[in-house]
Amino acid sequence: MNPYIQTNDNPDITKERKNASFDVEKFSEFYVGGKRVLAVRREVEKYVEDRKELRDPIPSAFMSREELIDNSMRKMVEMVSHEDMFDITNIEKLSYYASLVHVREVHALSLHYLMFVPVIQSQGTSEQIEKWMTLGLARAISGTYAQTELGHGTNLSKLETTATYDSKTQEFILNTPKISAAKWWPGSLGKFSNHAVVVAILYTNGECKGPHPFVVQIRDTETHKVLPNIKLGDIGPKMGINASDNGYMIFNNLRIPRENMLMKHSKVLPDGKYIKPPHSKLAYGGMVFVRSMMVRDIANHLAIAATIATRYSSVRRQGEITPGKPEVQILDYQTQQLRIFPSIARAIAFRFAGQELRNIFKKVSKQLTQGNAELLPEIHALSSGLKAVVTFEVQQGIEQCRLSCGGHGYSMASAFPELLGFSCASCTYEGDNIVLLLQVAKFLIKSVEKIRSGQGSDLAEICEYLNRKEARNSTLNDFKTYTNYDIVSDIEFVARRQVFRAFNKFEEAKKTMSKEHAWNSSAIEFCKASRWHVKLYIVRNFFKKVDQDAPQEIRPVLKNLARLYAFDLIASAAGNFMENGYMHFEQIQQIKNGFYECLSILRPDAVSVVDGFAINEIELRSVLGRRDGNVYPALLEWAQNSSLNKKEVLAPFEKHIGPMMKKARSML
Amino acid sequence: MNPYIQTNDNPDITKERKNASFDVEKFSEFYVGGKRVLAVRREVEKYVEDRKELRDPIPSAFMSREELIDNSMRKMVEMVSHEDMFDITNIEKLSYYASLVHVREVHALSLHYLMFVPVIQSQGTSEQIEKWMTLGLARAISGTYAQTELGHGTNLSKLETTATYDSKTQEFILNTPKISAAKWWPGSLGKFSNHAVVVAILYTNGECKGPHPFVVQIRDTETHKVLPNIKLGDIGPKMGINASDNGYMIFNNLRIPRENMLMKHSKVLPDGKYIKPPHSKLAYGGMVFVRSMMVRDIANHLAIAATIATRYSSVRRQGEITPGKPEVQILDYQTQQLRIFPSIARAIAFRFAGQELRNIFKKVSKQLTQGNAELLPEIHALSSGLKAVVTFEVQQGIEQCRLSCGGHGYSMASAFPELLGFSCASCTYEGDNIVLLLQVAKFLIKSVEKIRSGQGSDLAEICEYLNRKEARNSTLNDFKTYTNYDIVSDIEFVARRQVFRAFNKFEEAKKTMSKEHAWNSSAIEFCKASRWHVKLYIVRNFFKKVDQDAPQEIRPVLKNLARLYAFDLIASAAGNFMENGYMHFEQIQQIKNGFYECLSILRPDAVSVVDGFAINEIELRSVLGRRDGNVYPALLEWAQNSSLNKKEVLAPFEKHIGPMMKKARSML
Repeated sequence: MNPYIQTNDNPDITKERKNASFDVEKFSEFYVGGKRVLAVRREVEKYVEDRKELRDPIPSAFMSREELIDNSMRKMVEMVSHEDMFDITNIEKLSYYASLVHVREVHALSLHYLMFVPVIQSQGTSEQIEKWMTLGLARAISGTYAQTELGHGTNLSKLETTATYDSKTQEFILNTPKISAAKWWPGSLGKFSNHAVVVAILYTNGECKGPHPFVVQIRDTETHKVLPNIKLGDIGPKMGINASDNGYMIFNNLRIPRENMLMKHSKVLPDGKYIKPPHSKLAYGGMVFVRSMMVRDIANHLAIAATIATRYSSVRRQGEITPGKPEVQILDYQTQQLRIFPSIARAIAFRFAGQELRNIFKKVSKQLTQGNAELLPEIHALSSGLKAVVTFEVQQGIEQCRLSCGGHGYSMASAFPELLGFSCASCTYEGDNIVLLLQVAKFLIKSVEKIRSGQGSDLAEICEYLNRKEARNSTLNDFKTYTNYDIVSDIEFVARRQVFRAFNKFEEAKKTMSKEHAWNSSAIEFCKASRWHVKLYIVRNFFKKVDQDAPQEIRPVLKNLARLYAFDLIASAAGNFMENGYMHFEQIQQIKNGFYECLSILRPDAVSVVDGFAINEIELRSVLGRRDGNVYPALLEWAQNSSLNKKEVLAPFEKHIGPMMKKARSML
Repeated sequence: MNPYIQTNDNPDITKERKNASFDVEKFSEFYVGGKRVLAVRREVEKYVEDRKELRDPIPSAFMSREELIDNSMRKMVEMVSHEDMFDITNIEKLSYYASLVHVREVHALSLHYLMFVPVIQSQGTSEQIEKWMTLGLARAISGTYAQTELGHGTNLSKLETTATYDSKTQEFILNTPKISAAKWWPGSLGKFSNHAVVVAILYTNGECKGPHPFVVQIRDTETHKVLPNIKLGDIGPKMGINASDNGYMIFNNLRIPRENMLMKHSKVLPDGKYIKPPHSKLAYGGMVFVRSMMVRDIANHLAIAATIATRYSSVRRQGEITPGKPEVQILDYQTQQLRIFPSIARAIAFRFAGQELRNIFKKVSKQLTQGNAELLPEIHALSSGLKAVVTFEVQQGIEQCRLSCGGHGYSMASAFPELLGFSCASCTYEGDNIVLLLQVAKFLIKSVEKIRSGQGSDLAEICEYLNRKEARNSTLNDFKTYTNYDIVSDIEFVARRQVFRAFNKFEEAKKTMSKEHAWNSSAIEFCKASRWHVKLYIVRNFFKKVDQDAPQEIRPVLKNLARLYAFDLIASAAGNFMENGYMHFEQIQQIKNGFYECLSILRPDAVSVVDGFAINEIELRSVLGRRDGNVYPALLEWAQNSSLNKKEVLAPFEKHIGPMMKKARSML
């Protein structure tokens, strides 16, 4: 009945599965977003499993960077050729298909589909869309998005690449005036794209008009040689994602036609006259979309890490609890549960938050097409905040899961190094986390200002708690009677206090210094405020999802996970709750007791909960996290792929250490 | 005068150096351990800088695993051939020399010198020492230490490799009875060592005698072929340290002479009679030594990370504080200071703790040779605890420093991926951190039991605080008048309370369950107790070092760093200090104000403090952390090494994506 139980599995993991208190299939249906979604996933899995050409011939851990790139490119061309699966009208199916084929790689057309084509679509005129989107969707050209520079990241207005309009020839002249202006980091730029949307500072009629996007052909479509007046290259290896040729680009008086500036919003007329955009915020939509995808994908990485750690801990035996008895499954250690179980709960919390974000995004997109940008600031703040909080906590959680697997967690066989490499990147790309938290803070300031000016009833729903009446003390008495409503109220209290504290610190500082220095001197408090704001959202959404949407039969296991998440959040920030006696220590102690109880309730269900994440073995890519639990023989088999094992005596021995020892022996 | 200021440096970094309030050279002298030590380091640096053969021909980031190994091996043979530097009677000089040549690599003789030779020395009889140590020191053979198995890590008594004595032939028969018994992880085992000390479970006359060490030849010294009855190989790539051939080994009835069991402590006589060791704890000494080296080395990695982040943040300009003004040095952002400055303070705190640990170790070693093992439990607990706390916090700190450098921190050019790879390993090897913390807890329990039984005056010095009289409240009034003595007292209070809380929880649990389950159910509290015990030691030692040993002229800067460390520790555990009103919120607020003040006092000195760590550019190995601050041109130059930049059009383009696009264009 439980599809995860099969013959010849490790008996320890089968025993776990038999002990589960719930139906794992029902859990999966809810977790992935419905029966239909699960069915589509299974269909895609079967499709990829049945087609060797869509998979890696050897584990990617054993590939050199060149081999990684070659393999990734080969799979990418295969992937897009299966048109029944690679269907851009069905994003859900397509993205799962792509994630099974490419797992944690960024392939050569990732930026093409995620940035190049969408930016043209959202910022191009209809002629521009007709011209470049047609080419792009046909994959007749491949493009990327070149914004960041060696010396410039998130601060768009200070980019140094220039695009100077020459009305005589009706061309823009692109230049990289100094080294710090070199485009740096764009994926697929170094070696494989032949087009790019380049963001450059526009000058026309002698005036600076700030950053604008331009479509630039960078390589010959036939020979693939770099075009004159451009220097291009790979920026070298990184902590992860090395199948991608993140690149640099330097312009020296490159001329492009006037028509290559994307002119849906701003325009430069033939005579050089500049026309301002009507709505300056419309460009936000794309960022929100990318971040909403990110939150869910990154949450999935934590689910993968938790799956690996939980399954491995159920088959790894080490140490005795009772002397003389066999060694115990390490999942029985309280310390091990502490390391892993919060990540299980967070993976779910973050996934649900990501799902909700996408739902809101769909609503906002619809409104945007009708010219209504009212909800944009709210969802922009939420997506920025979720991205910052989730990526950081996912990375922390993956590392805890890795540590929980001891030495084997350090081997590439575990998949943890790759997961960490990816999640570390996610803390920085698509907006540095600190910068994003400060953007959230600006949204919070506006909300507080509304309240202070008596417009508290106008607040966005997500900020209503800021205007709620203050309780003086937590009403928590016994964790068993501590309701979800109480928990949310207590977290609201702390979030509200921190938001007002940061705001007041800022106001106070402004009395003695410039607004800008005041902002800087209260930035740490604002980051904390933003984090609380986001964490409150995550908890509230988790509870709502469980109480309102979850089917009855899996509600108890989810409820325990939601409480585990909330208790962990409160206990690990006990200081904030005890400030000024809002909670006293006995209450914190209750929270801790509740937390311990949640751990032990989860223990017998843990393996089935992670089974319920429905992570396919291809995506798991981990010897430690195998469904069957037969880890040790699989590790030995995996190691046989090592290039060092192809020959018995290696060249470095014969060249270096062998002669040294021989000489030493002859002298004894 | 300041040797770090040179012409053509980035003016931003020169300005920082000119603003320093202290003499950087004096700081270095104190930090490294004295004028003499600094002079030796400079001598070694010059030696290695002058010899191309001791350095990497290209940055190691661009080497394949095979190239890494070949290069490391080549340098190793070079390194040992310079006998004036490679002098094992001068460990201090030798270890710095080795660290400059090999930086963060484990070379082919690392385990040979760190484990194989020392274990024979400490556990062999005089004949065994004469035979194998002579060969080992001459480098006529190369050895490693094989203890961990696929299924077994820290729990020595449950190893599964067997050594069964056959009195007929006077041989031991080594076997790997099942896959989980395969030796797994030992460095240099896979391909390069020809000997190993193997830890196996001894059986003689039909009785199991537990784990014992055996010297085993594993490869032919002439041909280097694996000997019969042994299977050997590399375990595959890891998160880092890939120049090392961590290996696996499987025995199938391998016979070795009786004389190959290391018999200084236990013996097996020719007839199979087993003689027990006189003192079972004498073997601890080696572990303490290795951990004391580790604490200092790992602390140094944090110093390196802080150097990179601080220097880069002084030359990176991004965003405006005042609109219209040029972009600011990101080191001016409070959020950036929060990310980096605690790591500067911790690097120093940990280094001083490591230095002190080594001093105590020397004292204990001397006592041990006189048969006095009195201080052993104390230093064993301290070294275990420091290893666990320092490795974890170093890893966290490195990651914060990496994040502070934005996208560039993700490039291998930054050195952060390598630093993280190394520090992640350090959390697991030489004892899993949780296991170590629980060992510390056992020492703490003994101390509490002494107190409870009225022997409180017998406590080891490091535990005296456990017997101190309880204050009810912190006396903190204003952070400006908060003395080191007050700070230590407050941290003592929290540490003591946590130790007793864990102890009481354990005692309470024992009433309703077995001792072993009670231990498991209080393990999390005990881990916390151990951490507080260690952190208290670190703070106290930092203050002592500054107040008693630091020269007058650098005392102010160090004092500020010590307070920054302590304030950060208290503020980030505010909940513990507020429990039961020991501190109230206004006091925590004072601590925070103190922390902010420390940040701003450190700001103008930050670059010179990290200069004062005296990290050589070879060891730094970071484009972002360059002394001269000329980061951007150096990044561009570094990237030219990428193998992807050797050809303009790469094979994967011609094989895969090129034909795909060509076909698409033909169809339009």
